[in-house]
Formats: sequence, structure tokens, C-alpha cells
Amino acid sequence: MPPTCDIGMIGLAVMGENLALNMESHGYTVAVFNRTTEKVDELLAGRGKGKKFVGCHTVQQLVDALVKPRKVMMLIKAGPAVDQVIEELLPLLSPGDVIIDGGNSYYTDTERRTTEVEAKGLLYVGTGVSGGEEGALKGPSLMPGGSPAAWPLIKPIFQAIAAQVGPNHDIPCCDWVGPRGAGHYVKMVHNGIEYGDMQLICEAYLMLKEALGMSNAELYDVFDQWNRGELDSYLIEITRDIFSVKDPETSNDLVDMVLDEAGSKGTGKWMSQLALDLGVPSTLVTEAVYARYLSADKEARVRASGILPGPANAKFTGDKKAFTESIRHALYASKICSYAQGFVQLRAAADQHKWPLDYGRNAQLWRGGCIIRAKFLDRIKEAFDRNPQLENLLFDPFFTDAVKGGQDAWRDVVATASNLGLPVPAFGAALAYYDGYRRARLPANLLQSQRDYFGAHTYKRIDRPGVFHTDWLSLRKPPK
Amino acid sequence: MPPTCDIGMIGLAVMGENLALNMESHGYTVAVFNRTTEKVDELLAGRGKGKKFVGCHTVQQLVDALVKPRKVMMLIKAGPAVDQVIEELLPLLSPGDVIIDGGNSYYTDTERRTTEVEAKGLLYVGTGVSGGEEGALKGPSLMPGGSPAAWPLIKPIFQAIAAQVGPNHDIPCCDWVGPRGAGHYVKMVHNGIEYGDMQLICEAYLMLKEALGMSNAELYDVFDQWNRGELDSYLIEITRDIFSVKDPETSNDLVDMVLDEAGSKGTGKWMSQLALDLGVPSTLVTEAVYARYLSADKEARVRASGILPGPANAKFTGDKKAFTESIRHALYASKICSYAQGFVQLRAAADQHKWPLDYGRNAQLWRGGCIIRAKFLDRIKEAFDRNPQLENLLFDPFFTDAVKGGQDAWRDVVATASNLGLPVPAFGAALAYYDGYRRARLPANLLQSQRDYFGAHTYKRIDRPGVFHTDWLSLRKPPK
Repeated sequence: MPPTCDIGMIGLAVMGENLALNMESHGYTVAVFNRTTEKVDELLAGRGKGKKFVGCHTVQQLVDALVKPRKVMMLIKAGPAVDQVIEELLPLLSPGDVIIDGGNSYYTDTERRTTEVEAKGLLYVGTGVSGGEEGALKGPSLMPGGSPAAWPLIKPIFQAIAAQVGPNHDIPCCDWVGPRGAGHYVKMVHNGIEYGDMQLICEAYLMLKEALGMSNAELYDVFDQWNRGELDSYLIEITRDIFSVKDPETSNDLVDMVLDEAGSKGTGKWMSQLALDLGVPSTLVTEAVYARYLSADKEARVRASGILPGPANAKFTGDKKAFTESIRHALYASKICSYAQGFVQLRAAADQHKWPLDYGRNAQLWRGGCIIRAKFLDRIKEAFDRNPQLENLLFDPFFTDAVKGGQDAWRDVVATASNLGLPVPAFGAALAYYDGYRRARLPANLLQSQRDYFGAHTYKRIDRPGVFHTDWLSLRKPPK
Repeated sequence: MPPTCDIGMIGLAVMGENLALNMESHGYTVAVFNRTTEKVDELLAGRGKGKKFVGCHTVQQLVDALVKPRKVMMLIKAGPAVDQVIEELLPLLSPGDVIIDGGNSYYTDTERRTTEVEAKGLLYVGTGVSGGEEGALKGPSLMPGGSPAAWPLIKPIFQAIAAQVGPNHDIPCCDWVGPRGAGHYVKMVHNGIEYGDMQLICEAYLMLKEALGMSNAELYDVFDQWNRGELDSYLIEITRDIFSVKDPETSNDLVDMVLDEAGSKGTGKWMSQLALDLGVPSTLVTEAVYARYLSADKEARVRASGILPGPANAKFTGDKKAFTESIRHALYASKICSYAQGFVQLRAAADQHKWPLDYGRNAQLWRGGCIIRAKFLDRIKEAFDRNPQLENLLFDPFFTDAVKGGQDAWRDVVATASNLGLPVPAFGAALAYYDGYRRARLPANLLQSQRDYFGAHTYKRIDRPGVFHTDWLSLRKPPK
């Protein structure tokens, strides 16, 4: 049988199956393979029935079904399984063929694999795919990086299946990100920002529910309202929706029946660990990850709740409506800081790895399809259009003004939460970041003095260049 | 010449030279070697003149000078240099000899080296050494781990040169920590806690200086006062002293001439990255590391200070004396949270690596000699004496009460800082940790609902075991 397929898909779990269906719906013929081959048969007999799929029970069959240059995409578990499939594919493919990894691979693995696959004369792409099940089927955000020569080969399919934004719905949320691991790095930062967005929404929920005593019906209305303004975004929208879902079993609201132990899959952790290596303060994603960890120890928290006392006075006494608006300001200003930090980290990583990233285009990739999609991303795109070298979003006049307008409310929310005993680690970290960043003089002069005092770590001076050490002990005023 | 030396020291930089002098002053004969051999000659002609040192110009000479079983200690730069010296030593030593690494090695390197050196029939020790220059000379805190059989061989020297605490000054701040990398892990946590302590002191300094307008003379008196109470510690003491030191060049106070760009050497970063891997919320050390990173970009901060607006009203209007006491409470309560987190991380690491750690004894190792030495450590020792399996320091009645007494003041400091525009990331992170830990119900139920909504990540329920997934989209109230 002569090859007829435009692309091959290995791995038919939620993301792989829906991406394959998406490709097929755009006119492409797709060869599909899954290690557990029943999944292949199920797809062809079920959602893929009568569609342009070629079901394959071996990798060899999949390769044989593809038109050259072949494009094989994997949607499988990140880690050693990806290397195994690459090993299996390499002897079956020909020079110029493209291997694509659409999982959440750690970017250094993608850096290595690009080099290894290119050394065999083939091309490699590591692509971020965001949007969950629905996005994969109807239009995800795609963030491909790897071998630049692969881009023209996959561009038509990728840009066809991606989410489309803009007034005419013709700007695809998919463009080439950069060489080697750049695509997976950008996807990791997307996920880290998603961690921050979700934590900030949870803190807003905590304040609205615990300080203001709102019911789920009231919360629905608040998030519905918020979704019509600056905060308009997919995560605010689904948060609104969540408050309307009934538990089919108990007829309670389902959100109240869900256990408050957060899980995580690692991309937020990776972004934090890499920020620590890069020397950039990505406090929002890290506090969001730590907040999930803290939540996971529910059993200890329940015990602690009976032992550790709270504040003497934990009643909110102000104007509820005004404070609801203050919480919205806190969420928006904190979100700006979170995105500012994410782009600072992207820039630092791009400098380190010599990736020629286009930050405005990255913002546009996230404009639709993905979990953090939001109108807000247009503002970021515009900021980088005004200044492609913008070092921090906070310096862009739009964002400077946005924070200016809400900062007193934001401060009030953090202060009120502290006094009421309600934990808002991400609101607080964002505010500390903002106030730290705008201080010409931080107390680190004392810290450097301490380090020089006890460890002879040396210090710099404010009045002239150089590196200095002082024998503080012998110069101190003798203690009484 | 027959061997006469009790121990050999490789590396005569600040720490190595002072440790060698310390050993010699306790009656030991020390063979000394340094790659740049002039350092050896300088020591013997200078501070070591007439003392029981044997200067060596080669590693072979050093080995030949040692009584068997030989003990060779390295105080050299952590990293590949340690492996190189081990490679050099192995063929020269005999079974039963001990190689000791006293640098700040990454603990997994020490895990590996212990196994490798033991495989050659020799013994290996990775030891934390804290106390800076003065501690190394007069009595450091020592945290040895590695081959258990090495401990009886090095114990007399190590416990003789360590700091001594207790009413009779006869409890050495040195005891066996555990197998393989346990000693270096405990030292890393010591350093991470030191990061937290220093950041908390800097935040207190910022509030005293910027909110209350204190002069350095007033700051001296405040820290002198604080050093007589619960906060009594080396870092508070040297902070007091720093405010009394004049710049010999300008006759200004030296602390005001020091540039506010903090440096760091990596142990705080390592502790943060490992907390992220372990799934424990060590927010204090991480915020302290990030605060150093933020401080380091002074040039951007100076520009931002002219662009990013602060709060409309940034004047403190309360009682200065009472607020000074509130800041002391904030520092003390935050410090308790920081140590609680550090011991939680230690326990998680001990579980992971099967190190049989004794947490009370660890607290005692830090009681004297090291940078974080403080009376406070006695309280921690007592808490673990009361309950060796104490899962979080906050559960010990002493610390529960300590936080209870200061929490309203602590809340007021965080709230006031937020309103005045002064960044206190560590005070705030500590308070959010405390308030999060004592909440039976966190907003993570919403987060899990979001994850299940967009990614089918599943959730648990509060009313029965199991793992569930709901099609939220189809159950939501249709949007207007």
C-alpha cells in the first residue's frame, strides 16, 4: 500500500487522540499508533469511524504509512519513554524526516534530543501543547522549538489546528519559538504562570468566602462580573462555572465536596528550580508551588487547626462591595507581577541559551487555546511591540498605570488578610516583589555587612568601585 | 623520618588555616599542604611559627607524615577539585585511612564519594564546618557524616576543637550526624536557615529605619536590647556591632557606605531546590534567596524607583516604641516558622535517604560555634527531647505559646509594611505559612476543581475515598 498519511501520531491518551482528531478535521490523513493497540482499534471504531485515519499496530506500520518527508508526533509520558520511542524510530526513518515530541518534556532533554536526532540526519521538534482536552480537539496553543529546518514542514498542519485569534480569527496561536529546547521552556513558563494564576484566584476565593462570607451563588456572580473586565480569561471563566456545578451524588455544590489537597505534575517546580539557578526572583510561581505542597498535608492541617491560635479579632468590618473590588485589584496587580516575573525568567533563559526569542510573539501564542489565555495577553503583546527589549513589564506605561490604579486596594487586601489570619502567600509575594523592585535602596547593605563580618565575603561600596573587606570586630564599639 | 602527625590538612585558605591552628592549639600535630606551596611556608614562618606543624610541599609528603590510620582533611573549593584530590590520595593511602571533606559540598556528591571511597577499603567523611574565620580558629560547629567506622577515629580531634556549650562548657557542638551525605545536608539546612535569619533581620532593619526613621545609634540600642532576650544570638549581636562601625575613609557609618547588592554562594539555593523536589514548603529560605537576587539588580531598581509609584500615604503614625516591640515579635515569630520549615525539610530528607537523624542533637550542634548559634536552639533541643518524633516545631507547646504571644504584633507589622510600601517578603511568607498550616480548609478545593475541569486531572472528595472526574463543562449553568 503506498503511503497516504500526512502525519503520524504515537500515543492515543487524552491529548494524542484529540490532537489527531483535530488534524483529521482539518483535512489531514493521520496514521495512529498506541502501545496498547486496543486504543487504536477503539479510535477507528469510535470517534474516528469513517474518518481519514490509518490504524497501525506497530511503529513500522506507522512509518510505512507516511508520505515523505515523514512527520511523527509523540504524545506520550515525558521521560525515558520518549528516548525509547526515538530509539525505535531512528532506524525506520530517513534523512529529513521529523520527530515531534508534544509532551511536557524537561527542556534540557529536548536540547539533548535535538542534537542527537540532528546528528543522525533527521529533524527534531519539541513542542509545547496547551489547552487540555478541549483545546487539543478544537484548537490548542502550540509552542514548537527544535530544528529550524523542521518548521516549514510542520507549519501548515500546526498552524491549521491551532487556536485562531484576532478580530478575524486568523492569527494562529502557533509560531516557531526557537532552537532546541526553547519551545518546551516557553511551555514550562506558560505552566508556571498558570500555577500563579490559579493560586491568585484561590486567594481571591479565600478572601471572598472567608472574609466576606460569600455563597457559591454570590461567587458565581463575582467571577462572572470579573470576566467582563480586565481579568477576562479562561481561568476566571471556568472558576465562575465551577461555582454553578452541583454534585450529582449529594446535591451540594460540587466545589464544596472536593478535597482541598492540591496535586501537581512538576512544571511549576521546574520553573522555580531554574529561576533559582538563573538568579531571577520568580516568587509567584514558587509560592504557588509551595502553597500546593502545604495544602497536600491536610491531616496535619486539621490537627494544627485545633492547636495553633489565630488572631484575636478575625471579623471583617468594612464595606463588602468595596472590598470585593479591592480583591479584584489585588488579583489583577498580582497577576501583572507574575507575568512580569515570567518574562524576566524567559529573557534570562534566552540569554543563557542564546535563543533569539520574540517575547511579543510568545504572548500571542498564549492569547488563545491555552489555559492562561486572556485578553490581558494582548496588552503584553502591545508592550513588547512598543519595546521589543522591554526588561520588565512593570516598566511599560500600560502596566505601570494598571498597578498604580489598584495598588492601595491591593495593599489593603494583603493587610486585611494578615490581620484576619487568612493566608495569601501569592498576593503578599507579589506586593513584596513590587515594593522591592521599586526601591533604590534595599536593606541588603546590612546583609553584605553581616557576610563580611562573619565570613570575610567582602562587599562593594556606594561611593566607588572595588571590592572591600573590613575587620568589623576590631572596629566595633566594645559591648557594655 | 617516622610519621608524627595526628591529622593532615589540605588547603590553607581562611577556613583550613584556622582549623589547623585550632587543632594544633589542642595538642595535635598537624601536617599541612596547600597547592600553592608558598602558603605552607607562610604559615610555618608566621602564625604557625614554633608550633607543631609539619609543612609539606607534596601530597605524598603529607601522607608520609601521618600516623596510621591516617586522617586527611580537605578544606578546598567544593566541586571537581574535591574529586581530584581524592583521586590523588587514594593510591597513597592504606585501608582504614580516613579522607575528610570540610567544604560546602553538595550532599549527593558526598553520598557518591562515600560509596566510592569505601569501595577502595578506605573511610570517608563529609563534614559541615560553620563559624567563619573566628569559629574555625576558636571553636566551630562541626556536622560530620559519612562512613560510620570513621567516627571513633576522628571523634577525639573533632570534639576537642569544636565549640563547647552548656553550663559547664563541656558539650561539644560536634556529634555524628549520619551516614553518607547526612552531614553535608544538615550543614546545607544550617546555611539555609542562616539565609532566613539574615533576611528577617534585614526586614526588621528596613522597618525600623524606614517606617520609624531610626538612626544607626538607635538601631545599635535596639539590637543590643533584642540581644538580651528571646532573640539572643550571634547574628543579632553582630548586627548590633555593625551599627557602631565607622568607615575609616569617610567617617560615615560604614553600613551606609556598603552597596545593597547581596551576594550568595549557593547553599540557600540548593536547599530551596531540594525542598521543591521533596514537596515541602520551605518558603523562608526561598524568599530569602529571591530577596538577594532582587537586590542584586540595583541598576534596574534605581530606575524603577523613579517610575513605579508607591502608596499614597507612606507615613507611619503610630506609637514608635510599641511598634519597635511589634517588629521584635514579627522577627521572633517568623524565625520560629523558618526553623520549623528547616526541620520539616530535614525530616523529609532523612526519610527519603534513610538517615537516622537525631533532631534534638542537630539543634545542639548549632547551639554554639556556628553562624546561627542562639539560645533559641536550646528551646528546639528541649522540644525534641519532649517528643523526638515532633513533626513540626509549631506543635511544641513552647513554640505554640511563643507565636500566640506575638502574633497580633506580627500581623500588624506585615499589614503596616504592606500599607507603607515596604517590602517584607520573609515576614509575609512566614505569616502566610503559619496561617496556611493552621487552616483545616484551604482553597485548594477550587484549584483541584480547575485542574479537573480543564485537564481531567481528577480530584478526591471530602466524604469518601476514591478518585473522581466530572464533566464540569456539561454540568455548568449555561452562561448568559
